[in-house]
Amino acid sequence: MEKIEHIGIAVKSLEDSNKLFAKLFGKPHYKVEAVESEGVSTSFFEVGPNKIELLEATKPDSPIAKFIEKKGEGIHHIAFAVNDIENEIKRLKEEGFTVLNETPKKGADNKLVAFLHPKTTNGVLIELCQDIK
Amino acid sequence: MEKIEHIGIAVKSLEDSNKLFAKLFGKPHYKVEAVESEGVSTSFFEVGPNKIELLEATKPDSPIAKFIEKKGEGIHHIAFAVNDIENEIKRLKEEGFTVLNETPKKGADNKLVAFLHPKTTNGVLIELCQDIK
Repeated sequence: MEKIEHIGIAVKSLEDSNKLFAKLFGKPHYKVEAVESEGVSTSFFEVGPNKIELLEATKPDSPIAKFIEKKGEGIHHIAFAVNDIENEIKRLKEEGFTVLNETPKKGADNKLVAFLHPKTTNGVLIELCQDIK
Repeated sequence: MEKIEHIGIAVKSLEDSNKLFAKLFGKPHYKVEAVESEGVSTSFFEVGPNKIELLEATKPDSPIAKFIEKKGEGIHHIAFAVNDIENEIKRLKEEGFTVLNETPKKGADNKLVAFLHPKTTNGVLIELCQDIK
Protein backbone atom coordinates (compact mmCIF):
# COMPACT_ATOMS: atom_id res chain seq x y z
CA MET A 1 0.00 0.00 0.00
CA GLU A 2 1.34 3.36 -1.11
CA LYS A 3 -0.34 5.88 1.19
CA ILE A 4 -3.66 6.89 2.74
CA GLU A 5 -5.51 7.93 -0.40
CA HIS A 6 -8.41 9.44 1.53
CA ILE A 7 -10.53 9.28 4.65
CA GLY A 8 -14.29 9.08 4.07
CA ILE A 9 -16.47 11.04 6.50
CA ALA A 10 -20.26 10.55 6.63
CA VAL A 11 -22.12 13.87 6.91
CA LYS A 12 -25.79 14.85 7.02
CA SER A 13 -25.44 17.90 4.80
CA LEU A 14 -22.70 18.22 2.21
CA GLU A 15 -23.47 21.92 1.90
CA ASP A 16 -22.99 22.61 5.64
CA SER A 17 -19.98 20.32 5.98
CA ASN A 18 -18.25 21.75 2.92
CA LYS A 19 -18.29 25.11 4.73
CA LEU A 20 -17.05 23.55 7.98
CA PHE A 21 -14.14 21.67 6.41
CA ALA A 22 -13.19 24.68 4.28
CA LYS A 23 -12.69 26.54 7.58
CA LEU A 24 -10.75 23.62 9.01
CA PHE A 25 -8.35 23.34 6.07
CA GLY A 26 -8.30 27.02 5.16
CA LYS A 27 -9.37 26.21 1.58
CA PRO A 28 -12.50 24.95 -0.21
CA HIS A 29 -13.27 21.48 -1.63
CA TYR A 30 -11.95 20.98 -5.15
CA LYS A 31 -14.77 18.87 -6.52
CA VAL A 32 -18.19 17.36 -5.98
CA GLU A 33 -19.17 14.03 -7.48
CA ALA A 34 -22.26 11.82 -7.25
CA VAL A 35 -21.88 8.03 -7.13
CA GLU A 36 -25.36 6.84 -8.15
CA SER A 37 -24.69 3.15 -7.47
CA GLU A 38 -23.83 3.94 -3.82
CA GLY A 39 -26.58 6.51 -3.32
CA VAL A 40 -24.11 9.22 -2.28
CA SER A 41 -22.98 12.66 -3.19
CA THR A 42 -19.32 13.32 -2.35
CA SER A 43 -16.94 16.24 -2.09
CA PHE A 44 -13.16 16.18 -1.91
CA PHE A 45 -10.59 18.28 -0.06
CA GLU A 46 -6.85 18.06 -0.64
CA VAL A 47 -4.47 17.91 2.34
CA GLY A 48 -0.97 17.53 0.92
CA PRO A 49 -0.66 14.01 -0.55
CA ASN A 50 -3.98 12.94 0.99
CA LYS A 51 -7.67 13.69 0.55
CA ILE A 52 -10.75 13.96 2.70
CA GLU A 53 -13.97 12.72 1.10
CA LEU A 54 -17.26 13.91 2.58
CA LEU A 55 -20.22 11.61 1.89
CA GLU A 56 -23.89 12.60 2.01
CA ALA A 57 -26.64 10.03 1.37
CA THR A 58 -28.92 10.75 -1.59
CA LYS A 59 -31.29 7.83 -0.86
CA PRO A 60 -32.78 6.68 2.47
CA ASP A 61 -31.45 3.12 1.95
CA SER A 62 -27.91 4.17 1.03
CA PRO A 63 -25.14 2.69 3.24
CA ILE A 64 -24.24 6.23 4.38
CA ALA A 65 -27.84 6.94 5.50
CA LYS A 66 -27.80 3.70 7.52
CA PHE A 67 -24.39 4.50 8.98
CA ILE A 68 -25.52 7.96 10.19
CA GLU A 69 -28.76 6.51 11.57
CA LYS A 70 -26.77 3.98 13.62
CA LYS A 71 -23.62 5.88 14.58
CA GLY A 72 -24.14 9.54 13.74
CA GLU A 73 -21.86 11.65 11.61
CA GLY A 74 -18.19 10.71 11.63
CA ILE A 75 -15.38 8.74 10.00
CA HIS A 76 -16.81 6.07 7.72
CA HIS A 77 -13.77 4.47 6.04
CA ILE A 78 -10.06 4.71 5.30
CA ALA A 79 -8.91 4.25 1.72
CA PHE A 80 -5.39 3.11 0.87
CA ALA A 81 -3.88 3.67 -2.57
CA VAL A 82 -2.59 0.48 -4.21
CA ASN A 83 -0.79 0.01 -7.52
CA ASP A 84 -2.36 -3.32 -8.48
CA ILE A 85 -5.76 -3.83 -6.86
CA GLU A 86 -6.30 -7.35 -8.20
CA ASN A 87 -3.01 -8.63 -6.78
CA GLU A 88 -3.70 -6.86 -3.49
CA ILE A 89 -7.17 -8.46 -3.21
CA LYS A 90 -5.58 -11.89 -3.84
CA ARG A 91 -2.84 -11.27 -1.26
CA LEU A 92 -5.27 -10.05 1.42
CA LYS A 93 -7.66 -12.97 0.89
CA GLU A 94 -4.74 -15.34 1.38
CA GLU A 95 -3.89 -13.49 4.61
CA GLY A 96 -7.41 -14.19 5.91
CA PHE A 97 -9.16 -10.85 5.30
CA THR A 98 -12.75 -10.82 4.01
CA VAL A 99 -12.84 -8.86 0.77
CA LEU A 100 -16.32 -7.54 0.03
CA ASN A 101 -15.68 -6.94 -3.68
CA GLU A 102 -13.69 -9.76 -5.22
CA THR A 103 -14.01 -7.94 -8.52
CA PRO A 104 -13.13 -4.27 -7.98
CA LYS A 105 -15.88 -1.78 -8.80
CA LYS A 106 -15.89 1.78 -10.14
CA GLY A 107 -15.76 4.31 -7.27
CA ALA A 108 -15.63 8.10 -7.08
CA ASP A 109 -12.62 10.09 -8.32
CA ASN A 110 -11.76 7.77 -11.27
CA LYS A 111 -10.80 4.77 -9.12
CA LEU A 112 -11.27 1.04 -9.04
CA VAL A 113 -12.18 0.15 -5.46
CA ALA A 114 -12.72 -2.85 -3.19
CA PHE A 115 -13.67 -2.93 0.50
CA LEU A 116 -12.49 -5.19 3.34
CA HIS A 117 -15.07 -6.29 5.89
CA PRO A 118 -14.53 -4.42 9.20
CA LYS A 119 -15.03 -7.66 11.14
CA THR A 120 -11.61 -8.79 9.93
CA THR A 121 -9.91 -5.40 10.36
CA ASN A 122 -10.46 -4.32 13.99
CA GLY A 123 -13.74 -2.60 13.22
CA VAL A 124 -12.25 -0.39 10.49
CA LEU A 125 -13.91 -0.30 7.06
CA ILE A 126 -10.95 -0.30 4.66
CA GLU A 127 -11.09 0.58 0.98
CA LEU A 128 -8.39 -0.27 -1.50
CA CYS A 129 -8.23 2.03 -4.49
CA GLN A 130 -6.30 2.13 -7.69
CA ASP A 131 -6.33 4.87 -10.32
CA ILE A 132 -8.04 3.86 -13.55
CA LYS A 133 -5.36 4.33 -16.17
CA MET B 1 -2.32 21.55 7.26
CA GLU B 2 0.42 19.60 5.52
CA LYS B 3 -0.91 16.05 5.34
CA ILE B 4 -2.64 13.31 7.32
CA GLU B 5 0.12 12.55 9.84
CA HIS B 6 -1.61 9.47 11.18
CA ILE B 7 -4.91 7.76 11.87
CA GLY B 8 -5.37 6.50 15.43
CA ILE B 9 -7.17 3.16 15.81
CA ALA B 10 -8.39 1.92 19.21
CA VAL B 11 -7.66 -1.78 19.74
CA LYS B 12 -8.21 -4.21 22.60
CA SER B 13 -4.89 -5.99 22.23
CA LEU B 14 -1.84 -4.32 20.75
CA GLU B 15 -0.18 -7.73 20.43
CA ASP B 16 -3.02 -9.23 18.36
CA SER B 17 -3.59 -6.10 16.29
CA ASN B 18 0.10 -5.65 15.53
CA LYS B 19 -0.05 -9.07 13.85
CA LEU B 20 -3.25 -8.21 12.00
CA PHE B 21 -2.00 -4.89 10.64
CA ALA B 22 1.36 -6.41 9.71
CA LYS B 23 -0.61 -8.78 7.45
CA LEU B 24 -2.64 -5.89 6.08
CA PHE B 25 0.37 -3.74 5.19
CA GLY B 26 2.76 -6.58 4.42
CA LYS B 27 5.28 -5.26 6.96
CA PRO B 28 5.56 -4.99 10.75
CA HIS B 29 5.13 -1.94 13.00
CA TYR B 30 8.31 0.10 13.36
CA LYS B 31 7.94 1.13 16.98
CA VAL B 32 6.03 0.78 20.22
CA GLU B 33 5.67 3.67 22.65
CA ALA B 34 3.81 4.17 25.91
CA VAL B 35 2.18 7.54 26.67
CA GLU B 36 1.73 7.36 30.45
CA SER B 37 -0.26 10.59 30.72
CA GLU B 38 -2.92 9.20 28.32
CA GLY B 39 -2.91 5.69 29.77
CA VAL B 40 -2.08 4.11 26.40
CA SER B 41 0.45 1.92 24.73
CA THR B 42 0.84 2.67 21.02
CA SER B 43 2.44 1.11 17.96
CA PHE B 44 3.16 2.73 14.61
CA PHE B 45 3.05 1.47 11.03
CA GLU B 46 4.34 3.43 8.06
CA VAL B 47 2.23 3.68 4.88
CA GLY B 48 4.13 5.91 2.47
CA PRO B 49 4.00 9.50 3.82
CA ASN B 50 1.40 8.53 6.46
CA LYS B 51 1.24 6.45 9.62
CA ILE B 52 -1.26 4.25 11.40
CA GLU B 53 -1.16 4.42 15.20
CA LEU B 54 -2.71 1.56 17.16
CA LEU B 55 -3.79 2.46 20.69
CA GLU B 56 -4.34 0.02 23.55
CA ALA B 57 -5.54 1.24 26.96
CA THR B 58 -3.19 0.53 29.85
CA LYS B 59 -5.61 1.82 32.52
CA PRO B 60 -9.35 1.16 32.88
CA ASP B 61 -10.12 4.91 33.00
CA SER B 62 -8.03 5.81 29.95
CA PRO B 63 -9.94 7.58 27.14
CA ILE B 64 -9.20 4.60 24.85
CA ALA B 65 -10.74 2.13 27.34
CA LYS B 66 -13.86 4.30 27.50
CA PHE B 67 -14.01 4.63 23.71
CA ILE B 68 -13.86 0.84 23.22
CA GLU B 69 -16.45 0.27 25.93
CA LYS B 70 -18.84 2.66 24.19
CA LYS B 71 -18.14 2.09 20.50
CA GLY B 72 -15.95 -1.00 20.18
CA GLU B 73 -12.64 -1.20 18.36
CA GLY B 74 -12.19 1.17 15.43
CA ILE B 75 -10.97 4.53 14.21
CA HIS B 76 -10.43 6.90 17.14
CA HIS B 77 -8.95 10.06 15.61
CA ILE B 78 -7.31 11.67 12.59
CA ALA B 79 -4.11 13.63 13.10
CA PHE B 80 -3.02 16.35 10.72
CA ALA B 81 0.57 17.55 10.54
CA VAL B 82 0.96 21.29 10.99
CA ASN B 83 4.07 23.46 10.85
CA ASP B 84 3.13 25.90 13.59
CA ILE B 85 0.68 24.41 16.06
CA GLU B 86 0.23 27.60 18.11
CA ASN B 87 -0.77 29.65 15.09
CA GLU B 88 -3.06 26.85 13.89
CA ILE B 89 -4.81 26.68 17.30
CA LYS B 90 -5.32 30.44 17.17
CA ARG B 91 -6.67 30.32 13.60
CA LEU B 92 -9.09 27.45 14.34
CA LYS B 93 -10.42 29.08 17.50
CA GLU B 94 -11.16 32.20 15.48
CA GLU B 95 -13.00 30.01 12.94
CA GLY B 96 -15.27 28.72 15.72
CA PHE B 97 -13.73 25.31 16.49
CA THR B 98 -13.45 24.13 20.10
CA VAL B 99 -9.79 23.42 20.84
CA LEU B 100 -9.41 21.02 23.77
CA ASN B 101 -5.77 21.90 24.46
CA GLU B 102 -5.16 25.60 24.16
CA THR B 103 -1.59 24.91 25.16
CA PRO B 104 -0.27 22.01 23.07
CA LYS B 105 0.85 18.95 25.05
CA LYS B 106 3.52 16.30 24.49
CA GLY B 107 2.14 13.34 22.52
CA ALA B 108 3.61 10.10 21.17
CA ASP B 109 6.28 10.08 18.45
CA ASN B 110 8.03 13.31 19.53
CA LYS B 111 5.12 15.63 18.77
CA LEU B 112 3.35 18.58 20.26
CA VAL B 113 -0.37 17.88 19.95
CA ALA B 114 -3.77 19.51 20.44
CA PHE B 115 -7.24 18.08 19.87
CA LEU B 116 -10.40 19.66 18.44
CA HIS B 117 -13.71 18.72 20.03
CA PRO B 118 -15.68 16.36 17.73
CA LYS B 119 -18.88 18.32 18.39
CA THR B 120 -17.48 21.12 16.23
CA THR B 121 -16.00 18.83 13.55
CA ASN B 122 -18.85 16.56 12.32
CA GLY B 123 -18.21 13.92 14.96
CA VAL B 124 -14.54 13.50 14.04
CA LEU B 125 -11.90 13.76 16.77
CA ILE B 126 -9.11 15.75 15.12
CA GLU B 127 -5.54 16.04 16.40
CA LEU B 128 -3.10 18.67 15.25
CA CYS B 129 0.52 17.66 15.58
CA GLN B 130 3.82 19.37 15.10
CA ASP B 131 7.27 17.81 15.31
CA ILE B 132 9.25 18.91 18.36
CA LYS B 133 12.39 20.43 16.88
